[in-house]
Amino acid sequence: MNFPSNKYIIQLLSDFVPISKDMEEIIIKHLEFKTISKQENVIREGQIAQECLFILKGCIKKYYLVDGEERITNFYTEGQVVTPNSYTNKKPSKYFLTALEETIALVGDPDTEQEALKKYPQLASVTGIITEKLMVKLSDEFDNRINHSPEERYLQLIKERPDILQRVPQYQIASYLGIKPESLSRIRKRLKS
Amino acid sequence: MNFPSNKYIIQLLSDFVPISKDMEEIIIKHLEFKTISKQENVIREGQIAQECLFILKGCIKKYYLVDGEERITNFYTEGQVVTPNSYTNKKPSKYFLTALEETIALVGDPDTEQEALKKYPQLASVTGIITEKLMVKLSDEFDNRINHSPEERYLQLIKERPDILQRVPQYQIASYLGIKPESLSRIRKRLKS
Repeated sequence: MNFPSNKYIIQLLSDFVPISKDMEEIIIKHLEFKTISKQENVIREGQIAQECLFILKGCIKKYYLVDGEERITNFYTEGQVVTPNSYTNKKPSKYFLTALEETIALVGDPDTEQEALKKYPQLASVTGIITEKLMVKLSDEFDNRINHSPEERYLQLIKERPDILQRVPQYQIASYLGIKPESLSRIRKRLKS
Repeated sequence: MNFPSNKYIIQLLSDFVPISKDMEEIIIKHLEFKTISKQENVIREGQIAQECLFILKGCIKKYYLVDGEERITNFYTEGQVVTPNSYTNKKPSKYFLTALEETIALVGDPDTEQEALKKYPQLASVTGIITEKLMVKLSDEFDNRINHSPEERYLQLIKERPDILQRVPQYQIASYLGIKPESLSRIRKRLKS
């Protein structure tokens, strides 16, 4: 897999949060990467997360194991931040994060984060904006799940994240929609006709 | 209604986020209050939120109107922060926030917030911790809703927020659990026997 260029990384970050020229240099100097193999767990239920990720390439799924069954609640792809709850509250994770594809990500850990914030207090505004944005996004997803039918949510996925449908097996899409694979097949048939 | 004392306010805030003695003084000097009547809307669908709240007394429900039907997604009470998405992203609110009881809250608005952060940069760590905590909480609620049955969630409510059951009418509890009032009655009967 080709490694993302600095230019691409900064562009991806800028899509997420405004980055000044000064900040750009600081960030490039301190980038830390991680490659995660396909099927590798970023975190398992019960573990305490030591890092958060910013995905440059690849796809990570978030899921719970309930009675041996995967309940997928999110797919993270390029330009998305993965901050496990466990990273924030230092408690054992209730869910798994597993790479669906070989994934390259920027890595953040508490020590580096604290050190960076001490050295460059201006970073605090960046991390603040990121957390706020994540918050709104999560809240939207929550409410979306409550207020829309699986079929409506499937149509949204087609419109807003068409790449996911190409990258993720059907039965995992069904899990994400909270329905059985057979029900997703029926929805797809209905929409085609 | 009795007005909360400074001591009570600081205690409530301290339960949420550690507050130093210095910070305590700053906060008390700059407190801004708001009283919201029972049934009054804090925000309606389509409006842009101008403020966020920290509840000192009272109860606020968050809900969507879907085909004329209220879908309640949260009850906020004493010691909880209400930050409408609309406050953060400056877009029209997708949901309502309405007081279920007469409510007293501390108020934050963007100008005051910016000004305070400029004057007391140490506040940034407080707001940062608050946002992170809210994020974890919201994420937990989301996942809880996906991974547990209405009955399991009702039992959690009894255990973790027994006051809500006293303060909120049954049909609104049912809405929050995502079920019909009749189904909640059945669950209650089953649990009693």
